[in-house]
Amino acid sequence: MITVEEAEKVILAQAADYGAEIIPFELSLGRVLAENIKADRDLPPFNRVTMDGIAVNYNAIEDGVCTFKIKATQAAGDEPVDIEEQDECIEIMTGAMLPGSVDTIIRYEDLSLRAGLATLVTNEIKRGQNIHYKGQDKKHNEQVAGIGQLITPTLISMIASVGETELRVKKLPRVVILSSGDELVDIDQTPSPYQIRRSNNYTVKAVLTQHHIDADMLHLPDDELVIKKQLKTCLENYDVILLSGGVSMGKFDHIPKALEELKVEQLFYKVQQRPGKPFWFGKHNKGPLVFAFPGNPVATFMCLHRYFLPWLNASIGKKQKLALSAVLNSRISFHHPLKYFLQVKLQQNEYCQLVAIPVEGNGSGDFANLTDTDAFMELPLERNEFKKGEVFKVWPFA
Amino acid sequence: MITVEEAEKVILAQAADYGAEIIPFELSLGRVLAENIKADRDLPPFNRVTMDGIAVNYNAIEDGVCTFKIKATQAAGDEPVDIEEQDECIEIMTGAMLPGSVDTIIRYEDLSLRAGLATLVTNEIKRGQNIHYKGQDKKHNEQVAGIGQLITPTLISMIASVGETELRVKKLPRVVILSSGDELVDIDQTPSPYQIRRSNNYTVKAVLTQHHIDADMLHLPDDELVIKKQLKTCLENYDVILLSGGVSMGKFDHIPKALEELKVEQLFYKVQQRPGKPFWFGKHNKGPLVFAFPGNPVATFMCLHRYFLPWLNASIGKKQKLALSAVLNSRISFHHPLKYFLQVKLQQNEYCQLVAIPVEGNGSGDFANLTDTDAFMELPLERNEFKKGEVFKVWPFA
Repeated sequence: MITVEEAEKVILAQAADYGAEIIPFELSLGRVLAENIKADRDLPPFNRVTMDGIAVNYNAIEDGVCTFKIKATQAAGDEPVDIEEQDECIEIMTGAMLPGSVDTIIRYEDLSLRAGLATLVTNEIKRGQNIHYKGQDKKHNEQVAGIGQLITPTLISMIASVGETELRVKKLPRVVILSSGDELVDIDQTPSPYQIRRSNNYTVKAVLTQHHIDADMLHLPDDELVIKKQLKTCLENYDVILLSGGVSMGKFDHIPKALEELKVEQLFYKVQQRPGKPFWFGKHNKGPLVFAFPGNPVATFMCLHRYFLPWLNASIGKKQKLALSAVLNSRISFHHPLKYFLQVKLQQNEYCQLVAIPVEGNGSGDFANLTDTDAFMELPLERNEFKKGEVFKVWPFA
Repeated sequence: MITVEEAEKVILAQAADYGAEIIPFELSLGRVLAENIKADRDLPPFNRVTMDGIAVNYNAIEDGVCTFKIKATQAAGDEPVDIEEQDECIEIMTGAMLPGSVDTIIRYEDLSLRAGLATLVTNEIKRGQNIHYKGQDKKHNEQVAGIGQLITPTLISMIASVGETELRVKKLPRVVILSSGDELVDIDQTPSPYQIRRSNNYTVKAVLTQHHIDADMLHLPDDELVIKKQLKTCLENYDVILLSGGVSMGKFDHIPKALEELKVEQLFYKVQQRPGKPFWFGKHNKGPLVFAFPGNPVATFMCLHRYFLPWLNASIGKKQKLALSAVLNSRISFHHPLKYFLQVKLQQNEYCQLVAIPVEGNGSGDFANLTDTDAFMELPLERNEFKKGEVFKVWPFA
């Protein structure tokens, strides 16, 4: 049996680069950039007017001019129109390009307009006001987004601005989620009195969906030959196999034998943790990884967040968010030589501290309890008593 | 000009119920439940074995029996097999239904197995151990999920367990995102020296995608007749029109006139805030709402998070998360009679406090700056100086 830290290390050592692919910009939200994107011109590309009003040359104001003849009107998108005399102005709109002969924008609110003349009604005018200057945000060829950046709505705007209609993003691993066992029936079937419906695979798929992986699902029956044949196909067609249950000491667990025969090497079996002790992890000699989570759904859910997602982020080169910690809100005793992943509800207190409120379940297989919580708190292995007010790492889930 | 709180109140008063729709369970992640879901039987539906090993009657152990004859083997999903004699046991697997004649599971690790006999190698056995009891998580007809709950991966598991293949969820409003102005070209076009590419509409669409709304996009040219015709069509076909730009004092802003002619009543115009002062909000007499955000992309992004998303959550009956606050990390001065939405980067300090680090931009139109931040901090209107260490509300974005 290995520790949580050792298991994490073994798994992260298997982070793999699945390459890159080109996708339409419109489908890129949530993906990770695999290219550096540069500004194709300055941003803004010209001195951009930021208020509706008039454009004047500030020298005129210094010279005491306070009424300007409106020479022309320039909308956003129009070719700029210059003034020729100091007492002229251009009526100009937000988004327009500042003509070269003027340097200051006076907004309508500070003007009185009549018969083609604009008269100032304020003294507070600064040279260069109300202009967003060419290149102020980004210079031509300056990087606007880089490799490893998550494509968020704010980044989308930058990418659109520079006209990138297709983006090179990190490829995601191909994942198949396997369930097994004749005691499980599909959700649209009526289970016998001693069967239950599959549910764990749907939860795993939902978590993967949140991370933009469209995983396939497959159910293995309790049949040695079928299991071996299907596992072989999965190893040929996927980068990752996620199993929950089926790898234990049980007499009908044909999966470990099949994996061994198919040259999937065990990298570890059993981790000093609760839930999730019988967690098995292995690698096929051609690359595919097998995460065999315990059958207990809470254990699978925890292992998915504690091990699989960090592995995924490392594989696609996504910059990791800093780990979160929280203040434990009540005393916890745990007298087993295992690292305990406590189910907690996270809240913020009046001091802006993140507080973890333990939610006691009926045991680690109780998924009903999990819907009332939003994180696992990772309590150190070497201790048995955890006091209210102590700070420990938390693994939030949505 | 109204305050942020007044604007919020006016908008939330327009929260509308768009009804419910039935969708396949597999597509329900992130939606909001519009029905209560009950357990169709106890969860677990039977006394469920949680370890591989043997099932015995604890009375035998009390009577000193320590070697048991294996009468039969029962896999998960099998019909239960009973013992007839006290010194008999059933070899049994995780997930199996506990037979009525036994009450205790002894795992393989605590046994020595030989020639059809199982001998105890531990004294630490408790009556009823290693069993997940019938109805321990939920009773038959007990609610497992309710109206207004967000469908998360953990809830997915509960819903699958009770066999709901179709779910009644809250309908989302139909939204169209309008951009306007001949100065904007599409991202696949080459702008003239005085044009720029559309980007704001893509950002708005991305934020809506994060909230499961598949919004349409439409660009309005600077043509009064076309604008009126297209706005009319939008009012007939959508519940919400999101505009950015186009509603200002500009000479070529035909939108306000068209909205008025189309019977969209102004509910407010201008809010005491920066960015986003020229925010316009109105309602058509047949129901559709018009959020006309300012043209400045940062203002649009702020208003979307500060006003539109709370309105959306109220409309679909989604239980709101508690508002977050953070500790301001450096002194800020802001001498305008406006509520300032400061761009900040959120971090956690060693005391588990959420800390907001201001990231100064080049002005409110600078979207480049926004990609380095992850929240707006809402600073009170009535003050001009904000000290390091003070706590204010924050509006995070992804």
